[in-house]
Amino acid sequence: MKAAKRHDRDRRSFILGAGAFAAGAATRFASAARAGETTIYRYKTLDIAEVGGIAYETYFTKFCAEAVITGIFQPLARTVGAPYDSFPLHSLFWAHGGMMGWGTGCGTLIAAGMAVSLITGAAQDGEAIINDVITYYADTELPVYEPAPGKAKAAIRNTSLAGTPLCHISVGKWMKKENVGFSTVERSERCARVSADTAMYTAQLLNEWAERKYKRRNHPFANVINNGITSQTNCSDCHGDDIPDVPGIQ
Amino acid sequence: MKAAKRHDRDRRSFILGAGAFAAGAATRFASAARAGETTIYRYKTLDIAEVGGIAYETYFTKFCAEAVITGIFQPLARTVGAPYDSFPLHSLFWAHGGMMGWGTGCGTLIAAGMAVSLITGAAQDGEAIINDVITYYADTELPVYEPAPGKAKAAIRNTSLAGTPLCHISVGKWMKKENVGFSTVERSERCARVSADTAMYTAQLLNEWAERKYKRRNHPFANVINNGITSQTNCSDCHGDDIPDVPGIQ
Repeated sequence: MKAAKRHDRDRRSFILGAGAFAAGAATRFASAARAGETTIYRYKTLDIAEVGGIAYETYFTKFCAEAVITGIFQPLARTVGAPYDSFPLHSLFWAHGGMMGWGTGCGTLIAAGMAVSLITGAAQDGEAIINDVITYYADTELPVYEPAPGKAKAAIRNTSLAGTPLCHISVGKWMKKENVGFSTVERSERCARVSADTAMYTAQLLNEWAERKYKRRNHPFANVINNGITSQTNCSDCHGDDIPDVPGIQ
Repeated sequence: MKAAKRHDRDRRSFILGAGAFAAGAATRFASAARAGETTIYRYKTLDIAEVGGIAYETYFTKFCAEAVITGIFQPLARTVGAPYDSFPLHSLFWAHGGMMGWGTGCGTLIAAGMAVSLITGAAQDGEAIINDVITYYADTELPVYEPAPGKAKAAIRNTSLAGTPLCHISVGKWMKKENVGFSTVERSERCARVSADTAMYTAQLLNEWAERKYKRRNHPFANVINNGITSQTNCSDCHGDDIPDVPGIQ
């Protein structure tokens, strides 16, 4: 089946089926919002520029995931205190390079997921915020962040659209455009700025959530509904026109 | 450049270059093992079968990532107590389906990464253990776990080799072999058993580590060295024969 045809079909089934799926999901996810599992990570509105600056600088010694959790938790350790002040920031280090260099989900998103989950507890808003951060990462020309004057470790020329949360594709597309290798100061500079971008967007949504103004930008289950499997929106990137049929998707 | 040729070239450069790279990496990572960042998550040897049983049963209400952290932390909450007994297990929930259903790194691996990091602290062994768990997941016909008699929620016939830590490819290959859709009890059964497998293998390596018998099975930076970018071992799965040249890789 051709990708375009499949895509049209899935879009129809998504529109038709989203209501029923959402109702089912709400029931299923209600069991996840367990009584007694409220968060102890109290939140105070973050200074988004400060979050970005910390994440950017932290990248150069701790890599992407720890950069993001540090950007969000270090200011909260100062303004809120416990338990942020004793949270082991290094526990996110392993997620660098899409999990120990395997190029899967970008480490900045793993850190954002943990930070949001710890702060929002088992609230469903947390899931939606994380999904919105993932979508932002996939659908935005990155990096957006510009270091303060004199702070950049290298000059870089390009931004790029990943179209996916995968580290390998995200950094690979940028490396191709910039024409630099992975072990270069330019590539580090790019990933440091992307760390700032993810941390800042996460902080922005958390600020909205704390002020009860947060509204989700994207349907958290759209990809599973559209494609009948855990997936992204870029099927043809890997499958070309030969997208496999999925049992149960008509 | 043809994939096979590239692979051969990279294998040679890996063998030749691994020593120098490892020395550089050791220096870089030494800065990660920061003084004062020791773990408060004391460890006691886990009963691997118990870990598997908890992870398997937990999957059906909490999905893959929370299943794995629960399988490892619930027994430690009983035998060690704090801080396991107050760790918010739901903080891993969001990682289900490869991060909120995006099909990136399997949620079981995100949970294993967090569990190992919290337990081993900033020790370099932690990175190697996580990398070994990821490699096990990619390179093993899964699921291996068999529920106790009468405990299975569905009969399933197949195991499959993912060749990758990506949720989408891992579950997709299995669904194709089993000929079932994503929203089926068979697919849930498969992912519940995979959750048990990841949790059990993680517990096995942690037990070895606690007994000072752990030796890493795989080089933690092999993929980055081989391919000049954060990546996996299955380049041609997505790229076919058209694997992009990476600047800096000769």
